[in-house]
Amino acid sequence: MPATGRNLTLLTDFYELTMMRGYLKSQMADRLVVFDLFFRKNPSGNGYAITAGLAQVIEYIENLNFPEEELAYLESTGSFDCEFIEELRNFKFTGEIFAVPEGTVVFPNEPLIRVKAPLFQAQLIETALLTIINHQSLIATKAARVCWAAQGESVLEFGLRRAQGPDAGIYGARAAVIGGCSATSNVLAGRMFGAPIKGTHAHSWVMSFDDELTAFRQYAKYYPNACILLVDTYDTIRSGVPNAIKVFTEMKSQGEPLKNYGIRLDSGDLSYLSKIARRMLDAAGFKDAVISASSDLDESLIAQLKLQGACITVWGVGTNLITSEDCPSFGGVYKLASEIGESGIETPKIKLSENPEKITNPGSKKIYRFYDKDSGKFKADLIALESEIVDPDEDITIFDPVSTWKKSTLKAGAYKIRQLLEPIFVNGRLVYETPGVMEIQAYCKKELDTLWDEHKRLVNPQVCYVDLSQKLFDLKEKMIRELREING
Amino acid sequence: MPATGRNLTLLTDFYELTMMRGYLKSQMADRLVVFDLFFRKNPSGNGYAITAGLAQVIEYIENLNFPEEELAYLESTGSFDCEFIEELRNFKFTGEIFAVPEGTVVFPNEPLIRVKAPLFQAQLIETALLTIINHQSLIATKAARVCWAAQGESVLEFGLRRAQGPDAGIYGARAAVIGGCSATSNVLAGRMFGAPIKGTHAHSWVMSFDDELTAFRQYAKYYPNACILLVDTYDTIRSGVPNAIKVFTEMKSQGEPLKNYGIRLDSGDLSYLSKIARRMLDAAGFKDAVISASSDLDESLIAQLKLQGACITVWGVGTNLITSEDCPSFGGVYKLASEIGESGIETPKIKLSENPEKITNPGSKKIYRFYDKDSGKFKADLIALESEIVDPDEDITIFDPVSTWKKSTLKAGAYKIRQLLEPIFVNGRLVYETPGVMEIQAYCKKELDTLWDEHKRLVNPQVCYVDLSQKLFDLKEKMIRELREING
Repeated sequence: MPATGRNLTLLTDFYELTMMRGYLKSQMADRLVVFDLFFRKNPSGNGYAITAGLAQVIEYIENLNFPEEELAYLESTGSFDCEFIEELRNFKFTGEIFAVPEGTVVFPNEPLIRVKAPLFQAQLIETALLTIINHQSLIATKAARVCWAAQGESVLEFGLRRAQGPDAGIYGARAAVIGGCSATSNVLAGRMFGAPIKGTHAHSWVMSFDDELTAFRQYAKYYPNACILLVDTYDTIRSGVPNAIKVFTEMKSQGEPLKNYGIRLDSGDLSYLSKIARRMLDAAGFKDAVISASSDLDESLIAQLKLQGACITVWGVGTNLITSEDCPSFGGVYKLASEIGESGIETPKIKLSENPEKITNPGSKKIYRFYDKDSGKFKADLIALESEIVDPDEDITIFDPVSTWKKSTLKAGAYKIRQLLEPIFVNGRLVYETPGVMEIQAYCKKELDTLWDEHKRLVNPQVCYVDLSQKLFDLKEKMIRELREING
Repeated sequence: MPATGRNLTLLTDFYELTMMRGYLKSQMADRLVVFDLFFRKNPSGNGYAITAGLAQVIEYIENLNFPEEELAYLESTGSFDCEFIEELRNFKFTGEIFAVPEGTVVFPNEPLIRVKAPLFQAQLIETALLTIINHQSLIATKAARVCWAAQGESVLEFGLRRAQGPDAGIYGARAAVIGGCSATSNVLAGRMFGAPIKGTHAHSWVMSFDDELTAFRQYAKYYPNACILLVDTYDTIRSGVPNAIKVFTEMKSQGEPLKNYGIRLDSGDLSYLSKIARRMLDAAGFKDAVISASSDLDESLIAQLKLQGACITVWGVGTNLITSEDCPSFGGVYKLASEIGESGIETPKIKLSENPEKITNPGSKKIYRFYDKDSGKFKADLIALESEIVDPDEDITIFDPVSTWKKSTLKAGAYKIRQLLEPIFVNGRLVYETPGVMEIQAYCKKELDTLWDEHKRLVNPQVCYVDLSQKLFDLKEKMIRELREING
């Protein structure tokens, strides 16, 4: 399959390699450590994020190895000695990876991926894991916003030509479908992931014929069952829509069943034009003709157009979705959380910062999600130490880790719980089967259904509660105090 | 070489394929046409753009073909018949491509790529050409802005982990180096393009040792000739810088030559911290210790920090460069410009729009660039019809295509001219040799030197003149009038 099976082992920051050599020299390469991949802020001011990219992380890990040419290149940089190169030659990922499944609703500070591996290995994979998860989670989240604005109507991902390179188009389309897009224009993404592909014709089709009417007639002739005509090459209302109606009338009189037909607007005021076009199509007897639109759409414009009663039911979203234009980066980070000694004893690690929100959560952790038993709706997430166990038969008091006076008690029997992190690699062996993209899309839709509308509001949404367990909170406070004393 | 040699033939919008089938059925597939790839607006409010990505366009064209599995996939979509699939099976690019070389300063409405090919072929390649050129030109332009702000100081591209997928990291690093970055942290980009790679260590290095001083000592031991210590893991001024100074002092006393050493700041107020750190380093006798900085840098922040006298001389720029955060898309388009009849007679094509700036320039075109003969500085660009010839021994009057009263006469003998479009493919055969990335970087630097500082100002720069030839202007006006009459 094209663009997969790539060896991306060198897709890493140079400092990962310099550190790896340093660990090797310091006899620390085999030390078992835990790294968390998490993010600090939902993109686009959203109330949640959708995690995506795990399938590509798995592919990356499975293809991890240093071919001879890569080793020769590294040697040629002059930064590395033979011992280190030899260690890379024998590189094999032997660690454990837990991850939150793709399409899951997630929140800041939750470990989306937890890597437990020898320091040498865990350090190498930092950059690629971040690149993959940051990108796809960004686009999946943006897609969820756009689809929410479209209120269940079809959103098509049309952004390939404005994507930041081929992968951004390919994996962006994948993430967009996970987040709710019903199809993509990207043929390669369709081929690679089995996502539905859509599209009809461009302005160049119309311009290639002597006039618009001939262009429409020819298109209708060859695509009678998917005849969406682009009506704005010359003049939408005076030329495009009347010509489209002429062609639909001819198709009807020739006995065509006329399904899945209509027009696409791609410029001008989409609210005004769609209403006029709707009236013209209805008056001509084409009440079921689809009006689709594209042209710098995003979730805000779609919401505004809907408020104004625009007669559009299919939304083609390009640039603003595939680049997440208003917020083109996700901000995930990968931080050391623990060291595990030879005796199995864990030493939690923490990174301080002037900015309290940038202080990391120490220790190997897991995430519990609490749902209301009756409604199935999201109640809160709890980040706890890996060793902790929450008993669903007991009341549990959770509290906000910043505003600790914000407490709430979940009554035993009134909630359901679920752990978000699932095993992906154990002892370097893949133990997880990635669902198909359409299956992940369906799962993501269910995930979104567990949130209240207030959490999904596009602007200033209600915050979902993500709390730290008492044990984790106490550990963190203690470590901050101690480190300030040693290093401060 | 990893990540190259990929067959990206299916990296196209579905509508390119439906149109191609339509052209085949309509006996128009072999019709010779001219498409222009151009953009309408400089990104980030800049006064120019840097074109980049041609090497990857060449690679894409050279690898264009439909393997059997891809054909089987297309057949499985149910949209295509055997005749069309057979035509794809025999697909081979036989056309002509002219392009502006990578690293060139370019302006809105100039054809960066001109494709003359059978309609069937020219339509297929639209999407991938746009994806590649839009991405790399965006990042090269952003890099030029960032490097301009750094006033000749070293800018390092550090964005891989926040890039929109692997390619965005790889080709983004390439484009950033073209635009002026002196190195990248991306090892794979270094390997693929021969770009310098840089980096030392992360917070995790410091956290992996019992204390910061030990971590620094170990790093210095293994990298005495590239010892840039990250000083903000615990507390920059109270812990990081003093520990770094302690280590530098030890290195000195051990007889290390101490070159290419210093510190990196990665959080806090970089202006304040760099001044304090500079004072501390100087007082300890380390006047040549480098102070590098990273942490959400972009061209505006670098300019502001420089204004405040920040003591930083190496700038690590990540997220904001690799995503072009303030303007994450380039907006290039690909429009039909001409049809060439069997007798060789050209029929220019135009696309109208409600928005006058979106009306295309008809006909097959070329670009002349005028320089002042004495200073070598940029005077103006002239977009002319391919058949026109500018004689440098004659005066030439150029005028603004929107404000036509803005005229200016270039006196014979006072200017030099150069054509920007160069032949890349002729009859489907590659006739161009791509320079190495560092060579393109050097060329780009020379290109930028032809602009006045006023054109390079980061905010509200002076506009560079891009004019239409009288013949092209007249043709355009005539076609707009005629089309309004036929279709309006």
